[in-house]
Amino acid sequence: MSKQSLNDLTIRLREFAADRDWDQFHSPKNLAMALSVEASEIMEHFQWLTEEQSSALVPKKLQQVKEEIADVLIYLTRLADRLGVNPLMAAYEKLEVNQAKYPADKVRGSAKKYTDL
Amino acid sequence: MSKQSLNDLTIRLREFAADRDWDQFHSPKNLAMALSVEASEIMEHFQWLTEEQSSALVPKKLQQVKEEIADVLIYLTRLADRLGVNPLMAAYEKLEVNQAKYPADKVRGSAKKYTDL
Amino acid sequence: MSKQSLNDLTIRLREFAADRDWDQFHSPKNLAMALSVEASEIMEHFQWLTEEQSSALVPKKLQQVKEEIADVLIYLTRLADRLGVNPLMAAYEKLEVNQAKYPADKVRGSAKKYTDL
Amino acid sequence: MSKQSLNDLTIRLREFAADRDWDQFHSPKNLAMALSVEASEIMEHFQWLTEEQSSALVPKKLQQVKEEIADVLIYLTRLADRLGVNPLMAAYEKLEVNQAKYPADKVRGSAKKYTDL
Repeated sequence: MSKQSLNDLTIRLREFAADRDWDQFHSPKNLAMALSVEASEIMEHFQWLTEEQSSALVPKKLQQVKEEIADVLIYLTRLADRLGVNPLMAAYEKLEVNQAKYPADKVRGSAKKYTDL
Repeated sequence: MSKQSLNDLTIRLREFAADRDWDQFHSPKNLAMALSVEASEIMEHFQWLTEEQSSALVPKKLQQVKEEIADVLIYLTRLADRLGVNPLMAAYEKLEVNQAKYPADKVRGSAKKYTDL
Repeated sequence: MSKQSLNDLTIRLREFAADRDWDQFHSPKNLAMALSVEASEIMEHFQWLTEEQSSALVPKKLQQVKEEIADVLIYLTRLADRLGVNPLMAAYEKLEVNQAKYPADKVRGSAKKYTDL
Repeated sequence: MSKQSLNDLTIRLREFAADRDWDQFHSPKNLAMALSVEASEIMEHFQWLTEEQSSALVPKKLQQVKEEIADVLIYLTRLADRLGVNPLMAAYEKLEVNQAKYPADKVRGSAKKYTDL
């Protein structure tokens, strides 16, 4: 397994929790809460910005958002591990579903058809 | 780049949106909202379960949670790409910060010290 | 209208925003984000507690949660006002729906039947 | 107490839960999760709309948002009751804090000063 893959991160986080005896706090229920809280902390940075402003963050703000993105990925990885789910495989499966559901030649240019990624 | 890496997923999602002319909807502000909504949909499956029950989902429910995990990873990847952030590198940087902040030998077994992953 | 009713709060918040020229920030989209962020801040206080612990907060923590509850009610009231919705009437209507949906004599004591408030 | 006040709703919801033996599910932790999930369901209606579109919902969508607003108020009321908090008094206290924090004559017209309600 290569360094800095999602699989490697999964193992690193598993060790991190085990070393601290933190598995007792990491029930899927609690991790799902923590994940939602962190996703909300990303959003907090954008709530009063226009969409245009949200695409042009100043460096300090971008750094803060980057750290929140890290937290979301960490809790998502940890939750998936506790449930025995491979998040990357799940994403690829979902992408295939979405490709069938939203054929590019039918959906393109139609805002009305837009509902989901 | 290997198939089924987070980098590869980033590129696949970028193409998916471009093929459908969906970048117009994918402002960081909107993607942050979508990410938070999907994280909440994971949580919805756990809200009335005990912590114990949350660790032993029936297969049907586990499959539903897996699909929501996929959605979170997809929107997180897409948001990070729009901001020029590498989420895996950000997570490794955060892990180093957390290792310094919560030394295993001082934190272990102390529920009181527990505040964050 | 009595002092300290939800209707009175609605008017007070409307004046508060008008006095500061803040209606420009208070689109329903932005207020829905702010509401979700504040709801998440309530949750943050509970994420690592057991259910039992969550029923017995120390005074300092209870005060913090109380302030977040205030923020949620403020943004909910403001959002409803911008949409022309009476939140209290909406809640009473929903309560009637729930009473028909979950008859007490059929639902009582059946955890399995429990899915929603 | 007048019909259709927030105090009356509190009592009605307390009876509703007692009649169904649902207090066992309504720990503050679980109610905080449910509140966050419902706030997110409001947001879901707005995530792909522009701010302008979010101010002009079609009647069907407005009705759906209204029902989600009801759910948020119901869970917020229930959570506050379980914690012994009066949400309306808390909101008025917070409003006073905000009036001192953001004096109208200093804040008006200054988007830069805008950070919070």
